This record gives sequence, structure tokens and C-alpha cells, in this order.
Amino acid sequence: MTQSGPFTLGQLAEALGATLEGDPARPVGGVAPLESAGPNEVSFLLSRRYQRLAEETRAGAVVAPADATGLPGAVLRVASPQAALITLLRLFHPDPPHAPGIHPLALVAEGASVDESAAVGPFAVIETGATVGRRTRIGALTFVGTGSSVGDDTLLYPRVVIRDGVQVGSRVIIHPGAVIGADGFGYAFDGAAHRKIPQVGGVRIEDDVEIGANTTVDRGTLGDTVIGRGSKVDNLVQVGHNCDVGEDAILVAQVGISGSCRIGSRAILAGQVGVADHVTIGEGAILVAQAGVPSDIPAGEVWGGMPSRPMAEARRIWAAERLLPALVRRVRTLEKRLEELERRRA
Amino acid sequence: MTQSGPFTLGQLAEALGATLEGDPARPVGGVAPLESAGPNEVSFLLSRRYQRLAEETRAGAVVAPADATGLPGAVLRVASPQAALITLLRLFHPDPPHAPGIHPLALVAEGASVDESAAVGPFAVIETGATVGRRTRIGALTFVGTGSSVGDDTLLYPRVVIRDGVQVGSRVIIHPGAVIGADGFGYAFDGAAHRKIPQVGGVRIEDDVEIGANTTVDRGTLGDTVIGRGSKVDNLVQVGHNCDVGEDAILVAQVGISGSCRIGSRAILAGQVGVADHVTIGEGAILVAQAGVPSDIPAGEVWGGMPSRPMAEARRIWAAERLLPALVRRVRTLEKRLEELERRRA
Amino acid sequence: MTQSGPFTLGQLAEALGATLEGDPARPVGGVAPLESAGPNEVSFLLSRRYQRLAEETRAGAVVAPADATGLPGAVLRVASPQAALITLLRLFHPDPPHAPGIHPLALVAEGASVDESAAVGPFAVIETGATVGRRTRIGALTFVGTGSSVGDDTLLYPRVVIRDGVQVGSRVIIHPGAVIGADGFGYAFDGAAHRKIPQVGGVRIEDDVEIGANTTVDRGTLGDTVIGRGSKVDNLVQVGHNCDVGEDAILVAQVGISGSCRIGSRAILAGQVGVADHVTIGEGAILVAQAGVPSDIPAGEVWGGMPSRPMAEARRIWAAERLLPALVRRVRTLEKRLEELERRRA
Repeated sequence: MTQSGPFTLGQLAEALGATLEGDPARPVGGVAPLESAGPNEVSFLLSRRYQRLAEETRAGAVVAPADATGLPGAVLRVASPQAALITLLRLFHPDPPHAPGIHPLALVAEGASVDESAAVGPFAVIETGATVGRRTRIGALTFVGTGSSVGDDTLLYPRVVIRDGVQVGSRVIIHPGAVIGADGFGYAFDGAAHRKIPQVGGVRIEDDVEIGANTTVDRGTLGDTVIGRGSKVDNLVQVGHNCDVGEDAILVAQVGISGSCRIGSRAILAGQVGVADHVTIGEGAILVAQAGVPSDIPAGEVWGGMPSRPMAEARRIWAAERLLPALVRRVRTLEKRLEELERRRA
Repeated sequence: MTQSGPFTLGQLAEALGATLEGDPARPVGGVAPLESAGPNEVSFLLSRRYQRLAEETRAGAVVAPADATGLPGAVLRVASPQAALITLLRLFHPDPPHAPGIHPLALVAEGASVDESAAVGPFAVIETGATVGRRTRIGALTFVGTGSSVGDDTLLYPRVVIRDGVQVGSRVIIHPGAVIGADGFGYAFDGAAHRKIPQVGGVRIEDDVEIGANTTVDRGTLGDTVIGRGSKVDNLVQVGHNCDVGEDAILVAQVGISGSCRIGSRAILAGQVGVADHVTIGEGAILVAQAGVPSDIPAGEVWGGMPSRPMAEARRIWAAERLLPALVRRVRTLEKRLEELERRRA
Repeated sequence: MTQSGPFTLGQLAEALGATLEGDPARPVGGVAPLESAGPNEVSFLLSRRYQRLAEETRAGAVVAPADATGLPGAVLRVASPQAALITLLRLFHPDPPHAPGIHPLALVAEGASVDESAAVGPFAVIETGATVGRRTRIGALTFVGTGSSVGDDTLLYPRVVIRDGVQVGSRVIIHPGAVIGADGFGYAFDGAAHRKIPQVGGVRIEDDVEIGANTTVDRGTLGDTVIGRGSKVDNLVQVGHNCDVGEDAILVAQVGISGSCRIGSRAILAGQVGVADHVTIGEGAILVAQAGVPSDIPAGEVWGGMPSRPMAEARRIWAAERLLPALVRRVRTLEKRLEELERRRA
């Protein structure tokens, strides 16, 4: 990580649009969490949950909401501490300077088009007909296949694979090991063997998407698999062929989405969730970790469990399960007592 | 993807062995699904589920079963629309022409043997003693370790790792990021530390196998881990050391198989299934998505759930779980009413 | 795998510190399991479970515990057959000779420091400011980022990615495809879009750690993600940002650990376990396969299920679940019978 600074509290107040309570000339050299920050560092209070840590912090200054109280030292009051934290981190850790150019050990095939402001790392391969946009960085050992396009200001980390026929938008970030555009998993059993169904579609990764390390997004059988604008995909996620992920969706690590699913905009799939093929997840729906989803989920609802159910119902079932072993014994006892009563009655 | 065509309906009828109802001179330029195909494209009706889409399609022609009715335009009637679709896709998207030869930026070590009809991409590494068969393609940035063998007509996509001592058969396809032959996960705790058990076996990938992106198949401790002829493995699957996967098995994305398991031929493990070590899955058994399998599964049966049970039983349990919270209340009520009756009786 | 030998039983007895019952001059050429070993091979009896296989083995000799009985041929008696097996495997399959030096097709940037006893493979990239220790091997196509350090006697297999700002200890093994130090998954939703929280921390992999193929260990937001000394991590595991994994922990394949978790020393997380963020797993705790862990687990306990519970409780629930569908019917019957009794009473 690059490192910048130190900055004075006055400079930080200006950069953050903050109201400063403290000495504007005091310098700080870095950002640290409340519990580990020292007098030379600035820290941040993101939630009232951390109030006690804030009261005990040794930080030289704390970025805090307008109504925070009880802070021991200098305070930078802001409307949104989380937004301010992003600004702070960018200030102390700016992007490394952009160094355009194709590394002499990269291989850019004839007929590929790399913008002169783009950077291509050593042992990267840009195949024929591929295009790389302005200020885009292609990491070392990364592969961009025939006819694929990568937009502007996009960052492909080292050792990404973009196969042929894939469109990657602008301001996209793809982490190491991700594979975009491998064949979807499609076969027809002809009675003797699984015959491969050619996967001749592509993948479209829209603008402002981020894709995690070792994640796989398969190409469509016909037509494109789509990851919509602004969606964020964590590590080791599987997105099957012909899925259509909406905008600003969140797919947490190890989520698996079968083929031809539609994931609504702003939906959140927590870690290890699995979704069966042809399922629609409504806009803004939330699936809790490890949920198994065999059928459609309505917009805006929270579901969990395997098979998944509305979360309130899932919680009631989980609570009742604890009582189940005893319940079996209680029913057996009831049966005996009732039998006794009936016997006497008769 | 390569693109070929256009073809006339007459040419297609001949290629598919189809009976044509329509103008044999009419040209079509591509393949598309029923809902998006235009007059210049041919589409396909794979199942009666899509009958309505077929009746409303704008496609120039539809490949359909012999007994299909209600189709608005030209029809190509075939015995198996799915087999015909494979032929169609290969016709419009033929494999790119094979260009044999070792790229000048590839590294083929002394003592490696690459057939002259094979192709090796840039920055690929073929280590000493490795062999690459006829017409086999080794993608850019792919690694083939010491003494490993790759058969004929096999396709290793860019950035595959085949470690040392691995045998890959003929007509095998391995997608980017797959790692074949990493050490199995074996340690002996000696009271102070986990001591590594050397993993000195290998891996054998038999003919006609396909292995997905970022999947890992570990080498045996002693002897080989085997993926049997014709089996298809999806993305992000883990196959542990000394597993023996039979023929024509299907392992869907994110399946995890512990060490020393036997997976029967034609078994199907759906997405995210986990199998404990030393477990045998019978021939043709089916495990539904997310099943957790602690012990052997009989041949031909369908199991699901965690812990997995025969599917009929699992479904009954899942249905009954919905009633469980109310059941707890009903038993409490029964107990009170019975107590009241008993009290009166006494 | 390298191959050494043959060795006489006398030589093996000396290497293993074993008591030999048999001809010390008899040579054996390799190691094999009881069921497949031939007269030219040595085998091993690790557990009484395999007693019958041992009695029927054709092996030239068997490494066995001091008190083993009924073995048909030569026996090498040792205190710990598992430790002896490790010695045996190393003897027959020694590490290949270490060949120091930077391959002419590797790229070591100016300002990187590679010890002269280290080995760097073809198409590997060592970025500026990175350091590589004594006798360490950097595989082909592996990337070590700016300012990262790799200790002594460490083995990075081909196609590993170590991003910038990562510290890797000594005697560490990292398998192909692993990605150490990709950005953690952190965003702040500002009402319109998910804004990326810069991930400016690092990763620290301590001594004697092993990390599996295609596993991902994310860098901290601030401060380091840590994998403690001696811990072993299997394939396709996800370790989130700012996790602190203790010493000698075991993370089996496809485990997913969310951000800011603490995993106690010697804890064991079986395959496909998922842990929610900010959770603490106590020292020596065991989580069984597929457990879903929403909250802290006490030290030394065994938990399983989703949501996870103490294993004894989980087992009781799983057993009772089988009775649940019938229980629903039994309660319905009880209600009717009781109603009848009450009606008569009234």
C-alpha cells in the first residue's frame, strides 16, 4: 500500500468537510481503529456500539458523528463517519501513480487495441481483437481473450482470466484468480454419454462492478451472463451461465448461483448461499448465510434456512427444534395417559 | 466465439437429418432462444414447457420434435431437439482452426515431449519429462509439471496448473484456474505440531472428462486420485486425495468431496453438496443441492438434506418443520387439558 | 514425485528406529497401502480398523505398532506408525534437489531482494521492494507484490499470487492458485451506490503454515489478517479481512470465514463450515462439516448443524426430526381423542 501524510487536523477537517474541535496545527500520520490508535493517528467512531472504545481511545483525533459525546481528545465532526473514513483512507493511502505503457514482457497480439494511457503488466496476454480502454490497468500474468473488451479506468489485478467474447465495463475491479467467461455447465445425456452443449454466448460485466479473487462467472449458452452496474461480488463465488444479476447487488463469498437465475437489483446474498437454476430473487431481497433457495424469493423479503423460508418463520422453527427431542417424549407420555383415561372410561 | 453461416433451411435440414416444413432456400444467420430470436435466426423447442414461447416466436424457423404443433413459421422436425441443438451450435460456431506449434514465448523444458501437431500458448510452461499428445492445445500461462502426460485432442485453457505426476487423458477439457495434483490435506499431530504426510501419489483424469474453472483435484497420498471416463466436473469443486470418481458422473459447482471417497458411475452431486471422507456414493445415486453426506448412499437413490436422508423422507420432514412451532403450543395445550381431565377424574 | 530406493529392511529399521522381525537384507522398493502392496513393497498398519487387511496383505514388510499381532510377514515395530510413515515416505520420495537461481525468464524487478540460495521459476514476477529468503522456491507464473516478504525455506508452488504488503513466514507451503492479500469485501452504501472502503491493511502468514490450492486470504481493512504459526488451510477456503487465525488450527476445504473473526489455536473447522463476521471460535473447538456459525463457540466444544448447536444436542435433534412427520399425525389424533373424552365428560 502506498502511504501519504502526515496531515494536520486542519487539513483533515478541510478534506472531510468536518467541524474540528482541537488544535488545527496538530499533525497525524495515519489511520487506525479506536483500540489500537496512538496519539499520532486519527481514528473513527462508526457506530454507538463502539462508544466505550471511543471514550478510552488514545487516538490523536477521532472522526465522529455530529452528536457524539464523551470523546477524550480532538474530534472531527462529520455528517457520515463512514463516508469520511473512505476519504481519510484514500488520503493516507492514495492510489499509486499510474504508469501507462505495455511492459516489454507482455504479449499484445496483432489486432489487439490497447489505449496508450493504459498499462499492461509483464507476462500479460492480450489476444487479437481485444480492446483495452483509457487508463485501464492489466495486471501481470492476466489473460484477455480474443475479441473481448475492457473499458476505461478498470483494474484487472494479476492473474485474471477474461476469456473471448467478454465485455468488461469501466471502473470495474477484478481480483486475482477470477475467471470470466469459462463455459457454462451444459450437457445432454444421449443414453451413452454426456454430450457437451456448446456455450456460445458471452459475459457482460457492467460499469462499477467489483469481482473477488478466484470467483467464476460463466459465459451464456446463447446470449450473455450479466453482472449489473455497481454490483459487488466477493471471493470464490460461482455465477452460472445466463444469470442476470441486477444493479448494486451484493454476492458474498462462496455464494453459488445456478444457471439462468435473475438476481434483483440491491439483493444481498450472504456467504455460501445456494440458488437453484431458473430462480428469481426479487429486488432488495436478502438471503441469510447458507440459505438454500429452490424457488423464487419475493422482492424486499428476508429468507433463510435450507430449504429457505421467510426469516421470521425460519427463526421460529430453529427455536422449536431445540424442544423437538423433548416433544417426542412428551407426546409419548400424553398417549399413555390418554390411553389410561380412555381405558378407565370404557 | 467463432461465427459461421448463414445457412439455408435446406442445408440445416440436411445437417440435422430433419424434416423441413418451409422454404429450403430461406437463409438464417444464427441460433437464438424462442423469446429473442428474429426472422433471420433459427430457434429450438426443447420441452413442452416452452410451447407458448414457441407459438409466439418470431424465429425464422424452429427445430422441434416430430409431434410439435402450433408453430407459426418454418419447422425443422427431428427425433431429438437437444442433439440437434448441439449440431446447430457447432455449425454456426465451429471450433477455431487448429494452429499447431509452440509459441516462441512458451517454455518447453528439455526432455519434455510435445507432439508436432499440438499447440502451446505464450508463457505456458511444460516441464521436463512431460508429454503432450496430438492436436492437444495448451493455453497461455498454463503449467504442466514434471513427468505429467496430456493425451490427444485435449484442451487445457489458459492458466491451468497440472502438477507433476498427473495423467490427463484424451478429449479432456480443463477450464482456467483448475489445479490438478496439488497435495492432499494430510497431517499427523505429534502432540506439538501437525506434521505433514507427504503426498506422493498422483492424479489420473480419464478420457472425455471436463473440469471446471478454479476446481481443485488433489493428488493421492499413495496411489492415484481418479476422475473416471466421461465425468463432468463444474467450477470450484474440491475432490480430495485418493477419491475414485466413476464414469459419467456429474459434480456440480462448489461440491466438496473429502478424501478416499468412491463416487459411483453416473452419480449426480448437485451444487454445494459435501461428502465426508471414505464415503461411497452408489452408482446413479443423486444428491440434491447442499446435501451433507456423512455415510454411504445406496445406488440409484435420491438423497437430500443435512444430514442427508432419502428424498421422500427429507421432503416430509421439511413439510412438517413448518408445523413444528405450532406443534409445541398444541402439545402444551394438550398437556393442560389432559391434566384437567385427570384431576377431575381423581 | 522423485523416487529413491530400494532399501533393505535393515536400513529401514535403522531409519525408523524400528525393531525388525524379518530378514534385514531383504530389499523393498516402495511404499503401498495394505490392500495393494506386493512382496517388493513395505506397508503400514495405522489403526486396528485395518487389522484384517494387515493379516491378508502381500506386502514384503509392515510397519506396525509394538503390540500388533497376526501379521503374516516381516514386521517393523515402532512406537508411532504414523510418524514412521512420514519418515518412510520422505525416504522413498525425497524432495528434488534444490537448484538455486533466478530463471532467465523470471522477472525480478529492480529493488527486489532475492537471496542467492533461493530459486525463482520461469514467468514468475517479484515486484520492487519484495524480499525472498534463503532456500525459498518461487514457482513458475507466481506473483509476489510490491514490498511483500517471503521467509526462508518456503515453497510457493506455480501460479500463486501474493499481493503487495503481505508477509509470508518461513517453512510455509502455498499451493497453486492461492491468492493472499486481495482486498477485503467492504463497502458503505451511501443511498445511491456501494462505495468501496479502501483495504489498506495487509496479511501475515506465520511460520510453518500450509495454504491450499485456490484458497483466498483477504488483506485487512486496517491492520493485518493473520494465519497463525503451524495452521493448515485446505483448498478453496475463504478467510475474510482482519481475521485472526491462531496457531495449529485446521481449516478444511471450502470453509468460509467472514471478516474480523478470531479462530482459536488448535480449532478444527471441517469442510464447508461457514462463520459469520466478528465471531470468536474458542481454542480447540471443533465445528463439524457444513456447520453454520452465527455466534461465538466456547473453547474445546464440538458444535454442528445450521444454526450450529452443541453436537450432542444437534444429534438428538437430527434423530428426532425423523419422527417429526409422524409426530404431527400423532398430535392430531391425540387432539381428537381428547376432544371426544372432554365432550363425553361435558
